[in-house]
Amino acid sequence: MRSTMQDVPLSIADLVRYGTTVHGRARVVTWTGDAANPRRSTLAEVGARAARLAHALRGLGVTGDQRVATFQWNNQEHLEAYFAVPAMGAVLHTLNIRLHPDQVVYIADHAEDHVVIVDASLLPLFAPILPRLRTVRHVVVSGGGPADLGALAAEGVAVHSYEELLAGRPDTFDWPAGDERDAAAMCYTSGTTGAPKGVAYSHRSIYLHSMQVCMTDGKALSQGDTALAVVPMFHAMSWGLPYAALMVGASLLLPDRFLQPGPLADMIQAERPTIAAAVPTIWQGVLQELEAAPRDVSSLHRVVVGGMACPPSLMRRFEELYGIPVLHAWGMTETSPLGSIARPPADSEGEERWAYRLSQGRLPASVHGRLIGADGRPVPHDGSGVGELEVRGPWITGAYHRDDAPERFHDGWLRTGDVGTLTPDGFLRLTDRAKDVIKSGGEWISSVELENQVMSHPAVAEAAVVAVPDPTWDERPLVAVILKDGAVAEAAELRAFLAGRVPRWQLPEYWTFVDEVPKTSVGKFDKKVLRTRHAEGGLKVAEVRG
Amino acid sequence: MRSTMQDVPLSIADLVRYGTTVHGRARVVTWTGDAANPRRSTLAEVGARAARLAHALRGLGVTGDQRVATFQWNNQEHLEAYFAVPAMGAVLHTLNIRLHPDQVVYIADHAEDHVVIVDASLLPLFAPILPRLRTVRHVVVSGGGPADLGALAAEGVAVHSYEELLAGRPDTFDWPAGDERDAAAMCYTSGTTGAPKGVAYSHRSIYLHSMQVCMTDGKALSQGDTALAVVPMFHAMSWGLPYAALMVGASLLLPDRFLQPGPLADMIQAERPTIAAAVPTIWQGVLQELEAAPRDVSSLHRVVVGGMACPPSLMRRFEELYGIPVLHAWGMTETSPLGSIARPPADSEGEERWAYRLSQGRLPASVHGRLIGADGRPVPHDGSGVGELEVRGPWITGAYHRDDAPERFHDGWLRTGDVGTLTPDGFLRLTDRAKDVIKSGGEWISSVELENQVMSHPAVAEAAVVAVPDPTWDERPLVAVILKDGAVAEAAELRAFLAGRVPRWQLPEYWTFVDEVPKTSVGKFDKKVLRTRHAEGGLKVAEVRG
Ligand SMILES: Nc1ncnc2c1ncn2[C@@H]1O[C@H](COP(=O)(O)O)[C@@H](O)[C@H]1O
Repeated sequence: MRSTMQDVPLSIADLVRYGTTVHGRARVVTWTGDAANPRRSTLAEVGARAARLAHALRGLGVTGDQRVATFQWNNQEHLEAYFAVPAMGAVLHTLNIRLHPDQVVYIADHAEDHVVIVDASLLPLFAPILPRLRTVRHVVVSGGGPADLGALAAEGVAVHSYEELLAGRPDTFDWPAGDERDAAAMCYTSGTTGAPKGVAYSHRSIYLHSMQVCMTDGKALSQGDTALAVVPMFHAMSWGLPYAALMVGASLLLPDRFLQPGPLADMIQAERPTIAAAVPTIWQGVLQELEAAPRDVSSLHRVVVGGMACPPSLMRRFEELYGIPVLHAWGMTETSPLGSIARPPADSEGEERWAYRLSQGRLPASVHGRLIGADGRPVPHDGSGVGELEVRGPWITGAYHRDDAPERFHDGWLRTGDVGTLTPDGFLRLTDRAKDVIKSGGEWISSVELENQVMSHPAVAEAAVVAVPDPTWDERPLVAVILKDGAVAEAAELRAFLAGRVPRWQLPEYWTFVDEVPKTSVGKFDKKVLRTRHAEGGLKVAEVRG
Repeated sequence: MRSTMQDVPLSIADLVRYGTTVHGRARVVTWTGDAANPRRSTLAEVGARAARLAHALRGLGVTGDQRVATFQWNNQEHLEAYFAVPAMGAVLHTLNIRLHPDQVVYIADHAEDHVVIVDASLLPLFAPILPRLRTVRHVVVSGGGPADLGALAAEGVAVHSYEELLAGRPDTFDWPAGDERDAAAMCYTSGTTGAPKGVAYSHRSIYLHSMQVCMTDGKALSQGDTALAVVPMFHAMSWGLPYAALMVGASLLLPDRFLQPGPLADMIQAERPTIAAAVPTIWQGVLQELEAAPRDVSSLHRVVVGGMACPPSLMRRFEELYGIPVLHAWGMTETSPLGSIARPPADSEGEERWAYRLSQGRLPASVHGRLIGADGRPVPHDGSGVGELEVRGPWITGAYHRDDAPERFHDGWLRTGDVGTLTPDGFLRLTDRAKDVIKSGGEWISSVELENQVMSHPAVAEAAVVAVPDPTWDERPLVAVILKDGAVAEAAELRAFLAGRVPRWQLPEYWTFVDEVPKTSVGKFDKKVLRTRHAEGGLKVAEVRG
């Protein structure tokens, strides 16, 4: 029997229409580096400018589902593209500005980008790439002056100034209704092996994901919030904050290129966000900055941390020093990204509560999860059985763009490549990436667990653990340590510190002290680089036993 | 371009699978009248019993989209039907136990109910109806004993005991995945003119609506909540609480037949719900009860009020006496029902904030609204233009079951029959039902506004205003007043009280004092009855002028 319900598609067009009118007063603030003069706008104004952008893009031949790419920081113009491109029926493709030029070329070609919108400040990076792009016909430069435009040249490509393109166009656009399963936005992930892979979000998936972000057991985003989106808008849609803000009328604080701890602390003090989202490495920096030069961060009701495991010390320090709860979340580009979030059960207390909070969190109703063991068989959700997590749901990818990658899927479920346990009450605890697990004498050692333990030592700022070949045990852990400024510690001392905290057989023999841990384009520990450096003899390794 | 997202339908089967496992510990408490001994269960147990019920229903021929009707209070068994029936692919039909028998017969026939589950305590109502039902083949009696079963008889109908039917069946059921646009549940509304009309909710609409209920700007339902669902499960799906609770693992407190102020106050004190939902008339009674015999109601974080306009005095008293915020919501059976909810803008203060809270609230992104004036033309959303509200969205009905009722729709939008204004920031203020507006000398007088003003007089317990014919002005308001116990007030005094509070030309001349205002089956003022009584000369009317 059919229901009598209206057949109204979930669409970004409707979100734009709603958010930019009903919530037109919500603020959109872009940081400029000058605390007294950020760029201030509103959802209404961003909506009007998005309409102009849509008219302009129609003029550049974006009449259907062409890909409009962005090569931008988190700023107002990037948000305008977020609104205009999917709402007009085209596909927004957020290029990752931190990738190697070869990868950017590969990705833009693979997605068949027709237009690229580029921040003038990123032209030094983009200009050398442009002549290599095969499908791009228009480059639109936001910010900057005539000289910037002149510096750009490529055969068959027209170069435009963003502001000139928008000038004089109508402030409204008749955002069309489309099929909710059509692509709205794309993001490539290099987190997988092999060539980067494209995930194409649908209007439906973005809409549903936005609702989840606004659910009280999600990120609880609401009209009273101001969200500081540190996580890049080219990284898994800034974890869903821009569209969720549009859905409920939250204000947005966008850091532009000012991603260093100092400016971040400044903007928190000046603009008083209530929620902020970033990878742990960013928060480590902000905490150090606040210790060195205190700021008022009391506006923050919660801080969302994800993208890699949240070091317990980070969570404790935020809470003990500033009374700000850290919400640990897990997700992937492939999962839109909200996969799980660590809100402890209401009746949990003390250390049990901490354990829940430090887990990767609970999968919500829309993200079905299961564990598959090394033998390909399901592992029970008993909190101790370890397996690779597979997920399924309306905002989880079921393929990659023009690349079916069957090895990444299993009967319609996404194989996450993450390894861990699930409790009966739905909490995920990751012990590792499938490829980062250390197999020592036939047993698994969790690199993440070791990192967390090492980082809880007072002298340690950061730590990363990788597997290195070992004649006896096949693999053993190598710990790369960054000490805090001025702090001193020997490998032997750190190893002694670990004794009692991890099983004896897991105690690492191999230690190296480094000035920085290599990071990926989105700020996670880049273990691939660490492994290569070690293989090439580029690390000074101390060996400690006993 | 197609997205790469998985094509996973939104389904109640998935909600049941998720909520009854991951949130299996959430409590389901059914009141028994004895504060020391309510019936205690959990979502896990309700899930297991729902599985048994599904197996049993298969045995009764429920193999496809047959309608399984309920004639039940809000209790655990009713919840079991809520879970089992849609999750097994059939259609749950909640019969309104307060309707006239003729209407119940009409509705059950129209929906073609195959099975009816009846609470034993409702058999005196149901037994005389049964022989008149044409499509029902099985009656399942929950509670009660052999004598109850024996009292039921009708040609071609088998009578079963609920517990006997469930006994020995498997605790799990392989809930099938279906098309998200198929019907999951039905509810008839008698709020419209003519015959009752059926609304058939889809899996999709119920799923999306549940997410909205759990959004922070919705009812903010979360895993930490215990929800007291006073609003009947046969009235617009108990405002969405049961399925939303399943989605996030909130506990449920179900009052069964104990809907009087005393037991309600008792169960709040004993079971400490954090949220409770009911029509204003119920809350009026609870407040009076609490005044007479105080209870501890401090567990309530908020109280949801809807179904009719919330009298300002009710909101103020809840807040001033108990510190409990009242959330005013508007909706209809046709809107699932969450249409709008009055969360004031974060930066509003003082009286402005009160005005926002007393409005019908803000339409969320998924409920598109517009106003159509008496001339059929759109009215601007400027907070003053008055028109009939039309709504559109994924959980709004677009037809009635086997009854297209084209007069109730307008280019795909539902005509709500409610009249009012919309502000630029999306807040709805209803001034009346289209049919309750008083047309006096070519101008509209809002019956609701008058009622609220009269009810703010200290001697008045309740008031209802209807239009009565008037030789000069076409229509004039008649006020029906119930005085508080022991209070005294004359019509002239009440009229004088209104002077200055409403425009002079709106001051009512016609007053009547009654012992009770007739209520509809769901507790709203029944103005039809009042009008008829007046037309038949059944009211003693005082006339005051000057
Ligand atoms: N909270 C977390 N804890 C541990 N690993 C995480 C967490 N969040 C994300 N990740 C890792 O980041 C991957 C997704 O990377 P990306 O697609 O770049 O966002 C996941 O598959 C995990 O390996």
